[in-house]
Amino acid sequence: MGGDHAPDMVVAGADLARERCPNADFLFVGDEARINALLERHPALKPISTVRHTPDFVAMDAKPSVALRAGRNSSMRLAIDAVASGDAACVVSAGNTGALMAIAKFVLKTLPGIDRPAIASILPTQRGETVMLDLGANLECDADNLVQFAVMGTVFSRTVLGLLNPTVGLLNVGSEEQKGHEQIREAAAALRQTPLAPYFHGFIEGNDLALGTVDVVVTDGFTGNVALKTAEGTAKLYAEFLRRTFRSSLLAKLGYLLAKGAFNKLRQRMDPRRYNGAMFLGLRGICVKSHGGTDAVGFSNAIAVAFNMASHGFNDKIRDQLAVLQAALAAAADKARDESATGSETAVQ
Amino acid sequence: MGGDHAPDMVVAGADLARERCPNADFLFVGDEARINALLERHPALKPISTVRHTPDFVAMDAKPSVALRAGRNSSMRLAIDAVASGDAACVVSAGNTGALMAIAKFVLKTLPGIDRPAIASILPTQRGETVMLDLGANLECDADNLVQFAVMGTVFSRTVLGLLNPTVGLLNVGSEEQKGHEQIREAAAALRQTPLAPYFHGFIEGNDLALGTVDVVVTDGFTGNVALKTAEGTAKLYAEFLRRTFRSSLLAKLGYLLAKGAFNKLRQRMDPRRYNGAMFLGLRGICVKSHGGTDAVGFSNAIAVAFNMASHGFNDKIRDQLAVLQAALAAAADKARDESATGSETAVQ
Repeated sequence: MGGDHAPDMVVAGADLARERCPNADFLFVGDEARINALLERHPALKPISTVRHTPDFVAMDAKPSVALRAGRNSSMRLAIDAVASGDAACVVSAGNTGALMAIAKFVLKTLPGIDRPAIASILPTQRGETVMLDLGANLECDADNLVQFAVMGTVFSRTVLGLLNPTVGLLNVGSEEQKGHEQIREAAAALRQTPLAPYFHGFIEGNDLALGTVDVVVTDGFTGNVALKTAEGTAKLYAEFLRRTFRSSLLAKLGYLLAKGAFNKLRQRMDPRRYNGAMFLGLRGICVKSHGGTDAVGFSNAIAVAFNMASHGFNDKIRDQLAVLQAALAAAADKARDESATGSETAVQ
Repeated sequence: MGGDHAPDMVVAGADLARERCPNADFLFVGDEARINALLERHPALKPISTVRHTPDFVAMDAKPSVALRAGRNSSMRLAIDAVASGDAACVVSAGNTGALMAIAKFVLKTLPGIDRPAIASILPTQRGETVMLDLGANLECDADNLVQFAVMGTVFSRTVLGLLNPTVGLLNVGSEEQKGHEQIREAAAALRQTPLAPYFHGFIEGNDLALGTVDVVVTDGFTGNVALKTAEGTAKLYAEFLRRTFRSSLLAKLGYLLAKGAFNKLRQRMDPRRYNGAMFLGLRGICVKSHGGTDAVGFSNAIAVAFNMASHGFNDKIRDQLAVLQAALAAAADKARDESATGSETAVQ
């Protein structure tokens, strides 16, 4: 029931997603009468759909803490409960982001080895696509959080984007080793001790996002949120300038008519609906947040992302990778201890 | 002697800046023989130029601390010394940013009431232009720093950009009052106690940069640096996509030929050389940093920015504004004290 155009857009989005999600069934949680009426209009979707009724929903401007305490019967809460109970493989919502994260964290809990979940998203770049996290779940992050984000981003890139050995970069104000604050310098040192080391590119800067210098961009939630929105804002500014330029003279208008086909391709490639669906990573359950203002096409993309994560066993893979990582970090710590012990013996001799 | 194309680009840039800087004289610091040879090629510039010779210069990759200690005879140091001694009204350099800030801070010192200088730059927006600071001088900032940045940005916007009452925004992850970390929430509360209060917009988000929601964007140096480079990178990505699109088919190429005039105007408006020149604000002297890779046109813009700041008495105005601000903050603190005193008396009764 969340988002600007629910439930119509949600049901229409599911119908579009149907073809990209083979053997998927849909569980709609919300106002039964409205959802059933909509399903009548989507005859292919109806037989693979179930509706769980609730009149309650989380308002778009509700405080997360209030939504968590008071919204036990809300459509958002019941949809997340369905993931916790195993009735659903994943949940997709276009509702209130803060409430969704708070409820998902409370109901699903974090995966073993993950201190805090992160919000991740896919960005278009000059070379293809990059996944960036965190985008706002954690305003301040320590080195451990950042290392865990790197693991989660890597597993996402492998399983959902299909990259064999994605490269990882830490977002910083310069690429030299001494740049930035303590947390990222510590995270960089820790990553060099892990199995991710060969794919760890080091520090990257803001302009590397659009260049696609790395496949996984790791940052704290404050910086990531500002960077993502700055990139989106700049992209919109350019689209607007382009529109004005093509309208600025008769010749330019004619030029547009000729180049229209080529520009339609560009528009498709940069369509924000293609990149709709922010993934909540690090939870014991798959949860994807759609933009509240998207349409059915955008929502179907968010569903497809969640479906891919679920069908590729995304969380099992994160769990496995974290176990490997922790073993490697423990071994590195043991080695450092042994070496310093040997060092002191030598000093005694 | 700094930047990729010095000293040629520097001398040529000064010649271009000459017309926009009435009654300006130029002091060139560096390799006398090379500079004199270049001045021969710019006959109108030569009579208003002086050359101060030094064979030393700061390498582009030198550590700031090393440049500060070892570079006492460097062209950068001597140029800043000339501002300190009053021989020059302002200094412009295309050299090593970290070294320039370290030397400028050491030689010029900060203005009274300013704890830390900040780097500011002008950005193109949908509505016109916005000034943003800090862009990397201070990775972590407390509320006092941010309030001082707001004052410096406001004075810059008034004196250099000519806005009567520029609006100020604090860059955050959301616009609601409870968003963000402590430092920005404190800075917002403090700004509401100052004479800037009527022009304080509150929190803004990354997408507000391109929208031009406010005239002055205040942020810490880490976030500002990432946001600026992200915006620049996204702009380049779009320019690149645009180029590819116009080349993707014969019709698109023809379309470009027709729309070329309109696109040349757009290119001029978005020309990064127009926005060249990062201002070091809060020092007892005017210091502007040009991009190292710019050309004479870009460098002339950096000179024009410095000239404008000097001829409008920029630093005197910051000093005055800070005095007013401090009086207002002191009055607010007194008032809060009085009120709590009255409160406790009432409680006793």
